[in-house]
Amino acid sequence: MSLLVIGTLALDTIETPFGKKEYTLGGSATFISTTASYFTHNTRLVGIVGSDFPKEEIEFLKSKNIDISGLEISKDKKTFHWHGVYSHDMNVRESITTELNAFETFDPVISDKFKKSEYVCIGNADPSLQKKIILQLGKPKLLMIDTMNFWIEGKPKELNETLKLADIIVVNDSEARLISGENNLIIAAHKIMKIGPKILIIKKGEHGALLITKDLIFSVPAFPLETVFDPTGAGDTFAGGFMGWLDKTDDLSTENLKLAIVFGSVMASLCVEKFSLEGIRNLTNDVIMKRFYEFRNLTQFENVKL
Amino acid sequence: MSLLVIGTLALDTIETPFGKKEYTLGGSATFISTTASYFTHNTRLVGIVGSDFPKEEIEFLKSKNIDISGLEISKDKKTFHWHGVYSHDMNVRESITTELNAFETFDPVISDKFKKSEYVCIGNADPSLQKKIILQLGKPKLLMIDTMNFWIEGKPKELNETLKLADIIVVNDSEARLISGENNLIIAAHKIMKIGPKILIIKKGEHGALLITKDLIFSVPAFPLETVFDPTGAGDTFAGGFMGWLDKTDDLSTENLKLAIVFGSVMASLCVEKFSLEGIRNLTNDVIMKRFYEFRNLTQFENVKL
Repeated sequence: MSLLVIGTLALDTIETPFGKKEYTLGGSATFISTTASYFTHNTRLVGIVGSDFPKEEIEFLKSKNIDISGLEISKDKKTFHWHGVYSHDMNVRESITTELNAFETFDPVISDKFKKSEYVCIGNADPSLQKKIILQLGKPKLLMIDTMNFWIEGKPKELNETLKLADIIVVNDSEARLISGENNLIIAAHKIMKIGPKILIIKKGEHGALLITKDLIFSVPAFPLETVFDPTGAGDTFAGGFMGWLDKTDDLSTENLKLAIVFGSVMASLCVEKFSLEGIRNLTNDVIMKRFYEFRNLTQFENVKL
Repeated sequence: MSLLVIGTLALDTIETPFGKKEYTLGGSATFISTTASYFTHNTRLVGIVGSDFPKEEIEFLKSKNIDISGLEISKDKKTFHWHGVYSHDMNVRESITTELNAFETFDPVISDKFKKSEYVCIGNADPSLQKKIILQLGKPKLLMIDTMNFWIEGKPKELNETLKLADIIVVNDSEARLISGENNLIIAAHKIMKIGPKILIIKKGEHGALLITKDLIFSVPAFPLETVFDPTGAGDTFAGGFMGWLDKTDDLSTENLKLAIVFGSVMASLCVEKFSLEGIRNLTNDVIMKRFYEFRNLTQFENVKL
């Protein structure tokens, strides 16, 4: 199969209690496509960067077998830049600056080859832009979008229109409550599914994630780490693991959706152990499978009778 | 085997957004012993009630095969009374009144028969009282204590002494952080284990629970309910399911500890679906096993290779 990833490529400045990194590779499309590359060898990237984007990072993406023919390089602009500072408990972050730069002009024309991708993942962006992209596509088997409170509050009508076109939406618990106006996550999920998406992923940070469909609720915990080094990109890494596994297996059964969310959690847990993209830059199947078995130990129990 | 349960028997007045019940049967020992009775037929109760304690509730406890020979009835005092009001989202509750009444004089002498119980569960109480009880016991295979922030902040030295004598402590996440002074739950757990307990259960409310030993971290989610009717007694019901399963199976292996925490969660989820004790008053094996299988669907996934 093939997985089309559309989103930001960024140069981030990140401060956590453990240190600071300046202008390091980030962005939703970077995290999603890098993560997916460990599962599927047919990842396609659509995004935009500025003239300051390091050549070695382009080579890095190529080294992951990511098709970057959809990557635009804006000659007279800089790359998207985000500067964030995390508080001591890592649950709160403050955005110091968000400079859209080249991304402000992002209005991609999807190539005929890319249009036929079976799996599509669109990172957090203006829902009007997300819709414009979706309308260019063929009929993907599964289309996931990410969003955030900024759009839920700022462009609720546009988001509603985009949600009608999506198969999966990935949100955190507070976003699910915000979209639906419901406090209970299960009720919230069913209300959002009535708008359009057939599958909901609700991320709960240190409390893991829920996968909810009409017939299924599946819960996966976050991996209990003694040190979360940097949460940046964890959500996108989660999405990349989820969609990468589905593209690799091309199986949308309930049991395989469960595995997809487990691999999403596996990859997110590897991501937050290091700064920025470092946790997922150079993984091997062995490292990924070791964490997968650790997740099994963490959650699996015998079948017994009373 | 046999399970000794020591704690409060109360008449509670509870208000939730769904209604109000006055002077309804409650208390830690009530919830723990009633829950355990579905697993083991050798549950023993030590507690104190006042002259106002309804005779039919004593008959109810007897009907569950609970040995109530350790239940003292104070002729000139009333039964412990707690009046609590839950906020709309059920995560916050306000105690309107806590009248200790007969429980103020609770200073039990454990009978020789009860002293030999293999499994012991002591509900939340003054750690000095908990210690005084523990020192009367023989050498139980497993001794669990519950506590709360009131004692952690008010009697830290006494609690520390009691913790040295316990095998398992059950706390919620904020209590674990309070005892240890650590924000990260895994680090907090290992710090608490250094005081004494070999096993920690950390309850996370709507986010489930963690079982932590030197060699194991196991995570179980809370059952995703559309309606939590009344959270009163959920923690004690959890403890009752956990200890009841262990007393029934008499197996302290890692795999069986996992099952114990799952049955704790199963029982707690049945508890909060109805008011006060109503959710667990009249259960059958079928109802319990149905929820157990629902927990399996919620958490179990296949073993695969990448």
